[in-house]
Amino acid sequence: MFKLFYAPGSCALATHIVLEEIGTPYELMRVDLAGGEQRKPEYLAINPKGRVPALATEQGILNETPALLVFLAQRFPHAKLAPLDDLFALARLQAFNSYLCSTVHVARAHLRRGARWADDEAAIAAMKRKAPQNVLDCFALMEASMFVGPWVMGESYSVADPYLFTITRWLVLDGGNLSAFPAIQNHFERMSQRPAVTRAIEQES
Amino acid sequence: MFKLFYAPGSCALATHIVLEEIGTPYELMRVDLAGGEQRKPEYLAINPKGRVPALATEQGILNETPALLVFLAQRFPHAKLAPLDDLFALARLQAFNSYLCSTVHVARAHLRRGARWADDEAAIAAMKRKAPQNVLDCFALMEASMFVGPWVMGESYSVADPYLFTITRWLVLDGGNLSAFPAIQNHFERMSQRPAVTRAIEQES
Repeated sequence: MFKLFYAPGSCALATHIVLEEIGTPYELMRVDLAGGEQRKPEYLAINPKGRVPALATEQGILNETPALLVFLAQRFPHAKLAPLDDLFALARLQAFNSYLCSTVHVARAHLRRGARWADDEAAIAAMKRKAPQNVLDCFALMEASMFVGPWVMGESYSVADPYLFTITRWLVLDGGNLSAFPAIQNHFERMSQRPAVTRAIEQES
Repeated sequence: MFKLFYAPGSCALATHIVLEEIGTPYELMRVDLAGGEQRKPEYLAINPKGRVPALATEQGILNETPALLVFLAQRFPHAKLAPLDDLFALARLQAFNSYLCSTVHVARAHLRRGARWADDEAAIAAMKRKAPQNVLDCFALMEASMFVGPWVMGESYSVADPYLFTITRWLVLDGGNLSAFPAIQNHFERMSQRPAVTRAIEQES
């Protein structure tokens, strides 16, 4: 049985929702980030990066959201969570996930985790000031050029949908306004009502 | 025929090397980043993100290095550039690429592209001061916990190897010292001698 190492409010929610969509049994393992559990030897043996998510499988432990999402889609093809038979479409899905991971998540991390990239308080405050606009710029680009609709990749729901939902939820929880991004706002509202999404959020709260 | 939109010294080198490894015909399209070509309407029509690499295929244009690398490995399975029949091994490869993209590349970007994340000069200077140690920390983690050897993923050369080489090359060009990372240093030296690598670097210079 899979074990998902997660922290509430983290990007692990994307993988958590996908596990719920698939309906495969798994165990939730909460990591206490505020208490520093991710830096203790026990957790570093699970994920040397000291981050969540990590997914323990029967073959070993995996991490990094884009890798976990496509792994689960490939492992459970009946769930139809990625265009596994269309290499070009799969590459577009991977590109979307990669943008979320390396640009949108990173843009938002400068709001709260600036200490990763600078040591002095004024610099961390400067990053915090700029982060909200950077995140909005990412959403504007996704709305205009990347989001196909009604789902991220078009007619078919895929693992990119829980991932976009997870990061859109950060924007909402941070007090951001989605009204400039009507397609993504509509996506967020539809995602919020999916049973797999409500179950995952309830389990994390 | 593929067209690879690239800029010398950018992470597009990873995809460029993979195209050379495969031996499929492609055309190199240089984007003048210093001249701002990536922000002009002609290029934004190719890649709305205004970044390189982008790969024009017969089906459309793709971007994001992790997506391009796995797409090429899947599209040319005879080249054996990814463990396509082993989902767990493929997920580990994807996790490695994702870490390079979202953590190592981002850590290094703070050395030269701090203006992405803060507006004031002092903050940009503070990021620049911290970036070299962050990059070294990433290499220490890869050396200790992620790099299998002799290639990134073990006995088989894969698309992760040109990607690691590309980012290791940044560290070397930035004046960093690889001696604390003997496995990665050895990898860098072996990669530097591969015909596909020397051809790609020569074509970009």
